[in-house]
This record gives sequence, C-alpha cells and structure tokens, in this order.
Amino acid sequence: MSYKTQMEAARLGIVTPQMRRVAEKERMEADTLRQRLAAGKVVIPCNRQHTALDPHGIGDGLRTKINVNLGVSGDRLDFDLELAKARLAMELGAEAIMDLSCFGHTETFRRQLIDIATAAVGTVPVYDAIGYYQKELPEITAEEFLGIVRKHAADGVDFMTIHAGITRETAARFKKTGRLTNIVSRGGALLFAWMELTGNENPFYEHFDEVLRICAKYDVTISLGDACRPGSIEDATDACQIQELIVLGELVKRAWSQNVQVMVEGPGHMALNEIAANMLLEKKLCHGAPFYVLGPLVTDVAPGYDHITSAIGGAVAAMHGADFLCYVTPAEHLRLPELEDVREGIIAAKIAAHAADIAKNIPGTREWDYQMSTARRNFDWEQMFRLAIDPVKPRQYRTASPPKEEDSCTMCGKLCAVRTVNKILADLETA
Amino acid sequence: MSYKTQMEAARLGIVTPQMRRVAEKERMEADTLRQRLAAGKVVIPCNRQHTALDPHGIGDGLRTKINVNLGVSGDRLDFDLELAKARLAMELGAEAIMDLSCFGHTETFRRQLIDIATAAVGTVPVYDAIGYYQKELPEITAEEFLGIVRKHAADGVDFMTIHAGITRETAARFKKTGRLTNIVSRGGALLFAWMELTGNENPFYEHFDEVLRICAKYDVTISLGDACRPGSIEDATDACQIQELIVLGELVKRAWSQNVQVMVEGPGHMALNEIAANMLLEKKLCHGAPFYVLGPLVTDVAPGYDHITSAIGGAVAAMHGADFLCYVTPAEHLRLPELEDVREGIIAAKIAAHAADIAKNIPGTREWDYQMSTARRNFDWEQMFRLAIDPVKPRQYRTASPPKEEDSCTMCGKLCAVRTVNKILADLETA
Repeated sequence: MSYKTQMEAARLGIVTPQMRRVAEKERMEADTLRQRLAAGKVVIPCNRQHTALDPHGIGDGLRTKINVNLGVSGDRLDFDLELAKARLAMELGAEAIMDLSCFGHTETFRRQLIDIATAAVGTVPVYDAIGYYQKELPEITAEEFLGIVRKHAADGVDFMTIHAGITRETAARFKKTGRLTNIVSRGGALLFAWMELTGNENPFYEHFDEVLRICAKYDVTISLGDACRPGSIEDATDACQIQELIVLGELVKRAWSQNVQVMVEGPGHMALNEIAANMLLEKKLCHGAPFYVLGPLVTDVAPGYDHITSAIGGAVAAMHGADFLCYVTPAEHLRLPELEDVREGIIAAKIAAHAADIAKNIPGTREWDYQMSTARRNFDWEQMFRLAIDPVKPRQYRTASPPKEEDSCTMCGKLCAVRTVNKILADLETA
Repeated sequence: MSYKTQMEAARLGIVTPQMRRVAEKERMEADTLRQRLAAGKVVIPCNRQHTALDPHGIGDGLRTKINVNLGVSGDRLDFDLELAKARLAMELGAEAIMDLSCFGHTETFRRQLIDIATAAVGTVPVYDAIGYYQKELPEITAEEFLGIVRKHAADGVDFMTIHAGITRETAARFKKTGRLTNIVSRGGALLFAWMELTGNENPFYEHFDEVLRICAKYDVTISLGDACRPGSIEDATDACQIQELIVLGELVKRAWSQNVQVMVEGPGHMALNEIAANMLLEKKLCHGAPFYVLGPLVTDVAPGYDHITSAIGGAVAAMHGADFLCYVTPAEHLRLPELEDVREGIIAAKIAAHAADIAKNIPGTREWDYQMSTARRNFDWEQMFRLAIDPVKPRQYRTASPPKEEDSCTMCGKLCAVRTVNKILADLETA
C-alpha cells in the first residue's frame, strides 16, 4: 500500500476501502468523507492488524457513535463475563469497545476481543503497564510505557487513550489551584503519581514523537486522554481542565503533522449550562479534532442512575459538537458493571446519540422516528417492537399487562387518545 | 379571609401563610415571592379544602418541581396499588400528584388521596365525566362537564387540567393541516370527539367564565391543557400546537383578570434542538405564566426507556424556562406503570429537575453536589448513600460487589484514581 494511515491516504487523494464503507453507512459522498479525514475532522479507527473490523467514522457531520467500556479489575477477574459484555455491545450496535482491564495479564483477553470484534477496539496502555511488567509504578521506565503502546498496537488495537496532556506544567497548575475532586482519570492519576514519585516529565509527552511513530505504523488512532477531566460539577471548566486542553490542542497538530489520526477526550461531570461552551472550546483549541466525551454527568448526586445523568449531558454535548459518547452504566462510582448494567448503559447512550443526531439533522436519522410513530398511530405493535431501540423490553411490558382491546394499552384502555381520534377521523372521511 | 385566591392576596399586598412557607423552602424573601404571584409568574396550587397540603410554589426563579401521574384505568382497577404509588411519590419528594383515574367511580379514591396528600393534587375532570355520569361521551352536556369541575373543586383538588384551548378554530386547523400522530392528549381527544359528535364549541372554552368562578371560589389553579401536544417529533412546533398556544395565552389573561392562578401545559415529543425555542414561545405567548411540560421526549424510538428520553428533554426544557416537569415512566406508551416503573420515573424526573436547577443557579442547589463530591473524595460511603437521590440502589450495588479495599470499588480496585491522588497529595503535604 502506498499509505500508512487513513489520514495519509486522504491527504494523497486516495479513497480507501474503509472510507468507502464508512461513507456508505453515513449516506455521504466518499470524497466528502475523505476531505474531512484529510483535515482531521473525522477519524476512522482501524488498526491494520484488526481484520475482523467493520470500520466506523467518528467526527464532523457523521452519526454520533458510542463506546462501551469493559475489562477485568483486581476484584473481579472474570474474563468470560467481559467477553459476554463485548458480544452484547455488538448485538446492541455499539461502534466501539474499550478494554480497560487493569489487573494481571490481559494479553490473551485483548487478543480474543480483537479477534471477534467488528466494533473498533480501544485500550488505555498505561493501565496495563503494572500487570504486564509486574512492577511497582515508580519502577516502570518511560521506555517500558512506550513498550506497552507498541505491544497493544501490534495486537491490533484501533485506538488508544494516551494521557500526554498532563505535563509537569499542567500538574503544577493543579497543585497550585486545587480542586474538589482532584484527578479522577485513572490513567491521569497514575501518570501524575509517576511524575511526582520519579520527578520525570510525562513519558507520553516527552516521547510523543515515538508514540506517533508507533501509531503511524499500525494506523492506531490516538485518543488524547484528559487527565484533568472534572470529577464533580464544581471542578468543571476550571483552569486545570482548560490548561490541559490547550496542551492537547498542540498535540493534535503534532499528530496531524505525522498523518496520525487523533481525537480528544473530554468531560466528565459538568453542569448542563456549561456544556455548549465546552464543546466550542474543544473544537477551537483542538482545531476541529473529533471530541470523545465521558458523560458529561450533569449532577454528582445520582449514583445508581449515572446512565441517566450522562444521557442528559451526552445528548446536549453531541448536539453541540461532541462526536463520540462513552457510555456510562448505572454501576458508575459503585462497582464494575454487571451484564444488565451494561445493557442499560448502552441503551441510554444510544438514546442520547440518536436524540442529538435528530437535533443535528444527520441524514436518515428522523426516518426511524417517523416509522415508529406511524406504527404507533396504526397500533402495529409488532412493528413497534421491531423498531424499538431495545426490542425486548417493550414486548415484555405489554405482555405482562395485556389490555382488553388490541388498539389500546392498560394505561388508557378505551380512553386512548390515538384510538379515539383515529375513529373520529375515519368517520369524517367516510362522511 | 379578605381574599379568595393566593393571586388575589398577592395583589392586595397580603403575604399569606402559604407564601411564607413556600418562600422559606425556596430561600427567598416572602415579598419577592408575593410579587411574582401577583404578576402570575408563580403559582401556589392550594385548594382551600385541602388541609393536608404542604404547599409548593411553581414558577419563575423557583426550584423545578415534579408531578407524578397515577390512577386506575378500565384494564387495571387496583386502587390500593395507586395509593401505594402516591405514598412512594411523597416518600421520594414529588411535589405534586395527578390522579388520572379514567374508569368507573373514582370519587372515594380521590378523597382518600386528598386526605393523605401533603403534595399538591391535580386532576383532569374530563376523564371522570363518563364514569361519573355513566353516559356515552356525546350524551354528556356542557353543564355536566362543568359539574365535574365543581365536584373536584369541592373535593379539594389543587390544580385541574382544563383543555380549553382546543376550540373549533384549533380543531379546524388540525383537520386541515393534518399531523402524523394526530391528537395524543387523552382529554384533548375526548373534547375533539365531543365537538365533532355534537357540533358544539369546546364547553370549557365556551363557559370559561364559569370555570373561573369555580376555581376562584376554592382557589383551584388552572393548568391549561394542550390538546395539540405533539405525539411524535414530526408533529412538534407545528401550526396546531402553536395555534392552541396562542389561545392558551388569551385564556391566561382571562384567568388573571379574575385572580385565578394559572399555568400552561406543554410538549410532548420534541427534537432536542426545538426545546429552547418552545420554552421562549410559551413564556412570550402566555405572558410569563408557569410552564408545565410532559417530557419533552426527545425521540419516539425508545419505548421502555421513555423515562430517559424525557429526562433529557425535561432537563433542557427546565434549563430554558420550564417550571414543572411531569414524570414519565418506562411504561409510557406500553401499559399502566407498576410501582417499580413509578420509582424509576420519579428518580429520572428528579435528576432532570435538579440538573436544570444547577444550570439555572437556583439558590442552594449546588450544595448538594458539593457535599456528595466531598464524600466521594473522602470515601465516606455512608454519607454518599445518605445524600444519594435514591439512597437504596447505590448501597445495594456496593453490597452486591464488595471490593477488597474500602477506599476503592470493584471497578478500579487499587488503581482507583481518587485513592491514588489522595495518597500522593497526602505525601506532598507531609513532605
């Protein structure tokens, strides 16, 4: 092949098979998509080694995509459960899966996942360092951190979170200004700790050129991690967060100079009225690079329901420019999610993404709603179940509570407004 | 007493005990509240006969309130279940309960509900007409419709939905323009059918002065129903909806001229990008009267999850001016809700209301989040559970999946970001 990355191809004027596939799914001219890739406004995470992938695009003018986090922890080492989550994620239409395993040897699982994944696979290499090298954090060298990136890239990971923005400068600002919930990014906290314990600069920042070389070789999309993601609405849009975003904007340009695809990660906990401004800030400071948000969670007070707090924030974020939503499950802040938590998280994220796509008038989006409402007006229950974002639950609900009349439900029975008006309009037509 | 309604008192410069109580709860000067009541921008639904009531205010600058719908249907005649829903609603802090019973004799239940309700109680009298008179719809007379309003007012109902905006003019426009999902308001559909079957004008519109006399006598707050509430995102912000809203604005002024408290009901299904404009429209066309929204549901495709679609829309609506959110349960469009559906609906609505109040900077709102995030940073699990919007579910989640270390959860274990940074910062302090 005459190109290494999708971005390089796009800049050379080549429409790749991946671009063609994505353009088709997005109902878009392939060359329009190519231009956005060349400009860095769209990414197609697709590691050359990931043969099972059915690629998706993320970015400007495309459907909002969702990511499902999974992976084992030290307390919950059940790889089968995590594989079941991956299968569920694909069944429900998630476009990406991040393996966030953070304990022990995770290589076998990661390879299994990549083997079966039609969705893009992401990782956070820094989580894997302690388990891989079996060393205490401060003993890990900068070169070893890079070694994990090399390993994941060779395994076929499509996108990697690289927390290169929490430099010594960002960390100094954090220590100076203080925050209510400090650093809540797991990778960010590890790197902050490593920098404090060793006195060294962030290895991913210091050796960013080497990170770019690795990513260019396999066409890994960099997802620039936000170590200073606000962990409470109090900390949102503060100096730490914006300082880091400025650095991430600089790194975006460096990635583009090497034809490396890149997106930027964002909040976090954030009041509803701050979201639009934050989307604008990212698009400006990061030169239009796709924005990948975790939430935003619009309040801190709803543990057990953070799929809802983040669906609210995610819908508003995506309407204002976010391109990629990380799902949040009801288990957030409480435990590693179970399978049912994963299902609820995915549905909530899909609702948020779809609601935003309607608002952004993404081609084809409203047709789904039109079909559903047509079925609803016509009391075509089977069609409603088929079209539903979750085809299982609505049928269970209706089956558990059958009405006397088919053209109604047990809420209104004969007083159903749709039924009443259908009858009157039918009478008017025959009159 | 020298006044009949809270609005009359406010206009006479009287600060009533109800105003004092509401002002205290809202951390507001009582006279500021009085002025907003006098101007119609705030209502305090409080029927003189409803002695159990702990009144709440709804409107400009106040905390966003939520309403819980309940009541029996022809398919599901279980009054005990509906009373259990009422108790749950109050336990979870809902400020209002609407009894939407629409089958048979509902008087006994309504009175029981008013006897125990510290929350405001609302009804839609037109639902009750068929069961009360045991007549077919077209046989019910205009005077009989008014009789039901009188009955509910005397029973102590604090606010009533009166669909006076679907006039023959509005109905003609509806028939001419057509809509995907026609009329989905139950009361609106009944009145449309009644008008078509009898050839008469909407009785609540034609005899609106008599409605006002009844409401003034007991201080019933009118909730002007929107018969043309969009039932699909396709129908939102269309001519039918806005035509009716213009009529509702006229009726608001007529209510105020008789010192009758009034609020206006609104959408419905609506794309996320249309919500802000719709809030503005209501506030302008209805002269600043409080806005009570059902949703908005930001997509049609998620039956089984409409508590989430409406939490997204409700949060955005309330941020842009809606004052009162009607909860929506996962059972919407499918069945009469069970108790668990009611719980999920209430929590979702409370999240939406609180998220909006943070955005609107309602006094005291952010303190709750601050306390929660402080507890989270300090790994004070008991305090987190106490403060949680639902104190039950988070504890269940943690208990079902206990971590090895108390200052972590099973998601990250020892890699918990909060734990890591707390340790580093503690080391820095002692260094």
